[in-house]
Amino acid sequence: MDIDKLAKGIVAGERRALARGITLVESSRADHREQATALLAALPKEHEALRIGLSGTPGVGKSTLIESFGMMLIGQGLRVAVLAIDPSSSRSGGSILGDKTRMDLLARERAAFIRPSPSQTHLGGVARRTREAVTLCEAAGFDVVLIETVGVGQSETVVAEMSDVFLLLLAPAGGDELQGVKRGIMEMADIIVVNKADGDLKPAASRTCADYAGALRLLRKRLQDPDGFPKAMMVSALEENGLSEAWAEVQTLAGWRKDHGFWQRTRAAQARYWFEQAVKHALLAQLEAPKAKAALAELSDLVAQGLEDPTKAALDFVAQLDRSLA
Amino acid sequence: MDIDKLAKGIVAGERRALARGITLVESSRADHREQATALLAALPKEHEALRIGLSGTPGVGKSTLIESFGMMLIGQGLRVAVLAIDPSSSRSGGSILGDKTRMDLLARERAAFIRPSPSQTHLGGVARRTREAVTLCEAAGFDVVLIETVGVGQSETVVAEMSDVFLLLLAPAGGDELQGVKRGIMEMADIIVVNKADGDLKPAASRTCADYAGALRLLRKRLQDPDGFPKAMMVSALEENGLSEAWAEVQTLAGWRKDHGFWQRTRAAQARYWFEQAVKHALLAQLEAPKAKAALAELSDLVAQGLEDPTKAALDFVAQLDRSLA
Repeated sequence: MDIDKLAKGIVAGERRALARGITLVESSRADHREQATALLAALPKEHEALRIGLSGTPGVGKSTLIESFGMMLIGQGLRVAVLAIDPSSSRSGGSILGDKTRMDLLARERAAFIRPSPSQTHLGGVARRTREAVTLCEAAGFDVVLIETVGVGQSETVVAEMSDVFLLLLAPAGGDELQGVKRGIMEMADIIVVNKADGDLKPAASRTCADYAGALRLLRKRLQDPDGFPKAMMVSALEENGLSEAWAEVQTLAGWRKDHGFWQRTRAAQARYWFEQAVKHALLAQLEAPKAKAALAELSDLVAQGLEDPTKAALDFVAQLDRSLA
Repeated sequence: MDIDKLAKGIVAGERRALARGITLVESSRADHREQATALLAALPKEHEALRIGLSGTPGVGKSTLIESFGMMLIGQGLRVAVLAIDPSSSRSGGSILGDKTRMDLLARERAAFIRPSPSQTHLGGVARRTREAVTLCEAAGFDVVLIETVGVGQSETVVAEMSDVFLLLLAPAGGDELQGVKRGIMEMADIIVVNKADGDLKPAASRTCADYAGALRLLRKRLQDPDGFPKAMMVSALEENGLSEAWAEVQTLAGWRKDHGFWQRTRAAQARYWFEQAVKHALLAQLEAPKAKAALAELSDLVAQGLEDPTKAALDFVAQLDRSLA
């Protein structure tokens, strides 16, 4: 594969080149990984998209919101990429963005690029590949990269680690109770967006929004926030209400962070985070080499038979692991 | 430290030796880790305790149940050790078993040994240390080792990976709805124990028990289960009702698994699991060596400044990592 040509195609905004590049970073074949690394190194890093993380449990209306929000941005002349991290994709084959028809208006737009979650791997692998896909979308000149995830488990953390602004999408709650959103996830949110503020659900949406606004006020003030943030607001993705207000808030926040040095500081910290993750991943990948695998299987048999202590056998194995094994 | 003497003390059933041994396996100091590994290798493996995993969210009455259940077992002449895995202990300083007064009757018994969750480390570290503490308790001749965890997050999985029998403790539900117990956790359970089947809550407990019995019937039949398992049953830890029935079920299940080869097969698979975890841990521990740390910090700075791509820098680093660095 001609990596330089592929890189040029991506920078020129060719959709096919971008899609091929993402397929490359998603592959786990060793030669593909090598080419993907070369591709990432070859791409220019000057253009920065606004990376928006978006988390919400199934049923809160993520697809409808992304479609409405994306169409609005495109109407303003912006180019929008939508990526996804589905922590369940390794088992179920993917439950989000697997079907482009979920966002069929957006999918038909030339200024939009929609890519489902990479599958067949664990969350760490999905996350790394999506982060690399974000880099590719930035090089391809997209203005906004939306990274979607379902709000279960740890996928919010990894999405927050690759976003400039993180939105938590909620549905109106039945009672006057917070929806069991974990504190850790609330602490990640820059803006809590209560969707479905339409029809019968409007009063409930209003109450939920007020509840979360109250809860957010109780959180410790973060350095990277101007006054008034994090905040809660209502939208109706269905009726396309509140979307331009949400976009204005995102822009206000992003602008303030740029002006006050937090944008670059956060991106630098995120780069460190992904570097550390990649180091750990590369270290553990040594265990996948055929010789290492065979040696491990042999020791594992002894451990299973009770002839070796698991901890001691592990320490001995790693002490002896050298380049010839890996 | 005289490891042989410590091992002999543990085998002789000396409480202080056992406590010191557990403190040793809980330490993260390199010299302590080495001694802990030697200790584990030095201990005889002949005596097998019945390892019972017990998971339940806060408020379901875990402490009361463990106290009542433990006192009953001691009354039958058995020796009982209680260990805990608290995934939140690294942050909060531990929320379970931190206070022995939670089980003050049991704590006063000579035939009982209660140890709070190790703290100040991530779940993987807590889990490994607790698994090693289980080994120590077995060598010390305990008949039953109860491993408690709070039912949030991934700690159930690691407890199930060190248990012969896994109990899921639930409280009576308000409505006729299942309590949002994740399918994965239900699939781990050998016996679902609905607590608080007393007073006003008795009808709700009965309904909840029937609901879960129904849900369990929908799960795929597992090879390691005799007819009738997994099952749901009611107890009242407070009124000490149903405890001997629960114990009889545990013994029936354990006996069947021993007779049919599943006991040893499961333990062998668990030993493999912990060996693999220990290998990964030992590999990643190389990054903690001073030279490796310094080299990583330097590269991380370049990555943060955008002068190196995170993925490429990581691959280069690991390729160059050799014994001289570690």
